[in-house]
Amino acid sequence: MKRILVTGATGFIGRQSLDPLIRLGYEVHGITEDVSPRHPEGVRWHCENLFDNARVDELVGSIKPSHLLHFAWFAKPGEYWMSFENLRWVQASVALLHSFVKHGGQRFVGAGTCAEYDWRYARCQENATPLASKTLYAVSKRAFSDVLQAVADNTSLSSAWGRIFMLYGPHEHPKRLVPAVVLPLLEGRPADCTAGRQVRDLLHVSDVGRAFAALVDSEVTGAVNIASGNPVAIREVVEKAAAIIGRKDLLRLGALETPADDPAQLVASVHRLTNEVNWRPQIGLDEGLAQTVEWWRGQTLQRGTK
Amino acid sequence: MKRILVTGATGFIGRQSLDPLIRLGYEVHGITEDVSPRHPEGVRWHCENLFDNARVDELVGSIKPSHLLHFAWFAKPGEYWMSFENLRWVQASVALLHSFVKHGGQRFVGAGTCAEYDWRYARCQENATPLASKTLYAVSKRAFSDVLQAVADNTSLSSAWGRIFMLYGPHEHPKRLVPAVVLPLLEGRPADCTAGRQVRDLLHVSDVGRAFAALVDSEVTGAVNIASGNPVAIREVVEKAAAIIGRKDLLRLGALETPADDPAQLVASVHRLTNEVNWRPQIGLDEGLAQTVEWWRGQTLQRGTK
Repeated sequence: MKRILVTGATGFIGRQSLDPLIRLGYEVHGITEDVSPRHPEGVRWHCENLFDNARVDELVGSIKPSHLLHFAWFAKPGEYWMSFENLRWVQASVALLHSFVKHGGQRFVGAGTCAEYDWRYARCQENATPLASKTLYAVSKRAFSDVLQAVADNTSLSSAWGRIFMLYGPHEHPKRLVPAVVLPLLEGRPADCTAGRQVRDLLHVSDVGRAFAALVDSEVTGAVNIASGNPVAIREVVEKAAAIIGRKDLLRLGALETPADDPAQLVASVHRLTNEVNWRPQIGLDEGLAQTVEWWRGQTLQRGTK
Repeated sequence: MKRILVTGATGFIGRQSLDPLIRLGYEVHGITEDVSPRHPEGVRWHCENLFDNARVDELVGSIKPSHLLHFAWFAKPGEYWMSFENLRWVQASVALLHSFVKHGGQRFVGAGTCAEYDWRYARCQENATPLASKTLYAVSKRAFSDVLQAVADNTSLSSAWGRIFMLYGPHEHPKRLVPAVVLPLLEGRPADCTAGRQVRDLLHVSDVGRAFAALVDSEVTGAVNIASGNPVAIREVVEKAAAIIGRKDLLRLGALETPADDPAQLVASVHRLTNEVNWRPQIGLDEGLAQTVEWWRGQTLQRGTK
């Protein structure tokens, strides 16, 4: 019986992992703190505060999951890079790992970040590109992944660490790149952008969720980039979105300064994801952006009718 | 006002830092879990469980230390390398750091380990020798030091990380090297040893305590080796101890196999400690061993008369 516990299961990425996990045959248990309507059918929900180590240990002991997908972390745009919440999440994650192993868990997969890499290296490959985290967020993620790896090295635990690159899609925080452009354009307001010359790897969030489901279901261990493998300039992304909405006239490329520490290029090797996990994205950029614009249009209309 | 909080303040190393800190003008607060007779005069004691984050936060908030020396960790010989207690100490240490910064703390110094280094490099220099922790103990220490460094990089906190090499002296756990030889010899029993060809850096624990006091009182940041800078073969150490006791006849060098993963040489560069912290050891190996043998003799006599 494959029984998986998913943290952050109602979050931006976590929610996208649930259906794929069910299709892979898992009994899916989701942890969430919020009590809003949940989805999909077939997930067993547990309302728990992940900072309450004793309660979490009790929960893990009662579920006895064989697998764990750990998405929950502090991710508020503009704040998460330097917030002390990162320290609380290191603690909560280590406690969760401890409980998982103690109660017989077999495979733990966590969500890392491309920010763990040294950004002077434009193309990030899991076991070759040096790591040089600067922010409290990336250092905290990396510190936890080091502990996770050490536990796996010294016990029968199997573990992997998905390093997430850039992503977009439904339920994204409105302050992040795609909604920050799509929302004003949908409302007929201008959208200020940088010149958009930064080259990135963009993956639709439903593919990110599917990729993590495939990763946890595989036997691949260690760090694995979760990315599309298709570098694209940010300018192209926002122009595509504006074209879908039909308001390229409102796109103000170059209105914002490109931050000095924003790397020109940050792209992923997807060799491990493609050849070891045997997973490929299902949604291309055009289709993903069109679907995302439609989703935001639905949200805007809903708000408008309330 | 320099006000310092010392964790593990009744431990093997922590207890040796108290007098030096008092002499450096600190108001010294010690945290301990045990309620046995304490020393020295002039330390304000707080009986607290470091795993109780809320109580520790309250305590730090009431003391408002400007400095912190964090020695407390799980260190039971034979167990600490792989114990899951290391995970609890990562959590407790991160929580302590969080509270310290939140309540206005200025300088945090932690106790690291030579096991953070890649042992294929015989001579360990702080900013040159690669790190390659394998054990859960060393990875956990390093993970915490990375988080500490990231907090310091992104706030006004000053921090340093003393990497401890080999040490000996009063109050050492009886299962560690020097007492494991001294105790049987004092009792007239043979002491089984490896051939003792391993070259190490040995420092008397009172020097270790003084070095940490000097380090926390300095403005030196980052990793600093806490060591003597005088490599010595283990064989020489145990032969000296046996000579002091007058029972070289009972020393059985080569009776034990040298563990395959025991590095031939593991010594410290003390450039930073000597030239940046401006600190030098006070106790040479001969004097330190003589004093340590006397201390153990006292313990044995005490036990004998009870």
